[in-house]
Amino acid sequence: MRNIRLVIEYDGTNFAGWQEQRTKTKAQCLPTIQACLREAIHKVTGEWVTVYGASRTDAGVHALGQVANFKTSSRLSAKRLVPALNYYLPREIVVRSAEEVPEEFHSQYNARSKVYRYTILNDPLPRAIDRNLYYHYPWPLNVERMREAAQCLLGKHDFRAFCVEAHNKENTVRTIKSFEIVREGLPAIYGNSSYLHFVVEADGFLHKMIRGIVGTLLLVGSGKMGPKEFKEVLEARNRRLAGPTVPARGLCLLKVNYEENGTWPGQPT
Amino acid sequence: MRNIRLVIEYDGTNFAGWQEQRTKTKAQCLPTIQACLREAIHKVTGEWVTVYGASRTDAGVHALGQVANFKTSSRLSAKRLVPALNYYLPREIVVRSAEEVPEEFHSQYNARSKVYRYTILNDPLPRAIDRNLYYHYPWPLNVERMREAAQCLLGKHDFRAFCVEAHNKENTVRTIKSFEIVREGLPAIYGNSSYLHFVVEADGFLHKMIRGIVGTLLLVGSGKMGPKEFKEVLEARNRRLAGPTVPARGLCLLKVNYEENGTWPGQPT
Repeated sequence: MRNIRLVIEYDGTNFAGWQEQRTKTKAQCLPTIQACLREAIHKVTGEWVTVYGASRTDAGVHALGQVANFKTSSRLSAKRLVPALNYYLPREIVVRSAEEVPEEFHSQYNARSKVYRYTILNDPLPRAIDRNLYYHYPWPLNVERMREAAQCLLGKHDFRAFCVEAHNKENTVRTIKSFEIVREGLPAIYGNSSYLHFVVEADGFLHKMIRGIVGTLLLVGSGKMGPKEFKEVLEARNRRLAGPTVPARGLCLLKVNYEENGTWPGQPT
Repeated sequence: MRNIRLVIEYDGTNFAGWQEQRTKTKAQCLPTIQACLREAIHKVTGEWVTVYGASRTDAGVHALGQVANFKTSSRLSAKRLVPALNYYLPREIVVRSAEEVPEEFHSQYNARSKVYRYTILNDPLPRAIDRNLYYHYPWPLNVERMREAAQCLLGKHDFRAFCVEAHNKENTVRTIKSFEIVREGLPAIYGNSSYLHFVVEADGFLHKMIRGIVGTLLLVGSGKMGPKEFKEVLEARNRRLAGPTVPARGLCLLKVNYEENGTWPGQPT
């Protein structure tokens, strides 16, 4: 059997996420990204395969560089698979590349780290055109204070405070390799809006972990919580002390890094 | 009566355009931008007003800086109108600003020029996230040849060749003040895609004129038409000699310029 690795971009707005989640929400009646890919692969190869995704993105979460793999006995070249799959996929999902990988490769287990971005529109006015790609926070934010607080997240920690529904015995220790907060202003012709991007790289993420961290950092940025208190929230490992979970639509999976492809996202590839 | 001028942003994907068009298409069963604004103004002021738009964008066309005005006897300040209208508008439409203007101001008749942008994704692969904001043209294009051909468009001309359904007696003379073709490449983390923006400023535009011009320039860029032939198409004033009309979703109204607000879009405002 050949093993095919895909890099996939999607707008998660109208999907129930990568795969069915344990938490049932309204969005659960929508299709999943995984199911759409499985169906497109069936139309192209005639086979019903299992599609393994690197990261199980929630309903409404987007991806620019999701990675998935599947086994096939189809003899179609990896290069030809890309336009063939895109032909059958809805316009919200695009396969960006396909390549044959060793049979033992597994997109989830072999992932060394994942890079996510959470985007906040930090401006009095909302925007229309990219409305499904940001969370609108119209009040002023002290970015320096947020950066200071976020320092304590770096490294290996128990992130139980920022995750939902972890069983007591679940391993909630993860390693955050980098956490950057970047301001981006739009030029005048595009309306001068100001975005705040939280770019996080970690060896793995707990369910809704980034959205819990960003929600709590907003308390710091708005002055409702001190950077020292933020650290205490992390250390207390108690979800109730943390801030609200910000909406899914601001979150985007930028990249999944592997050993043999261990480039840093800023690097030209 | 007070006269209020609005600057409006919208994603035209799910609308039948600014107002009902003479040409009936499938999109005609969708709401119009004008009707949504009228309804929001009614909810805020209690009045049913006429909303005058600077440019009647077609179904599927977007705007970052559409301008409209309406008369009201409401005493609500222009500043407070912005959040009030946005509260009632669908998320696809955002009022960016409101100001009181002299009673004789008319957003359409007083417009000195309009700036539109047509965006082509010139890359082998489509994209998912901004799929409603570009026209996908996957084959190579000679941009220099297109720039050379576009030179003849500058100035005052009869643009009948690039417009649909003009009556014989209709005045089809317009003045194009600038026509720029700009390449924009996305950074590696966003997938290296290459966009081509056609930015056009004119005193006015005929129905589907920009989309006809861009469709014909694509023939030039792909080598099917010479820059000299392109000029002959313009001079022949015959729609049948021009290229196809490219889809509405690549088009966006960037700005409307007025005498008292005569800044050039590149300028910081």
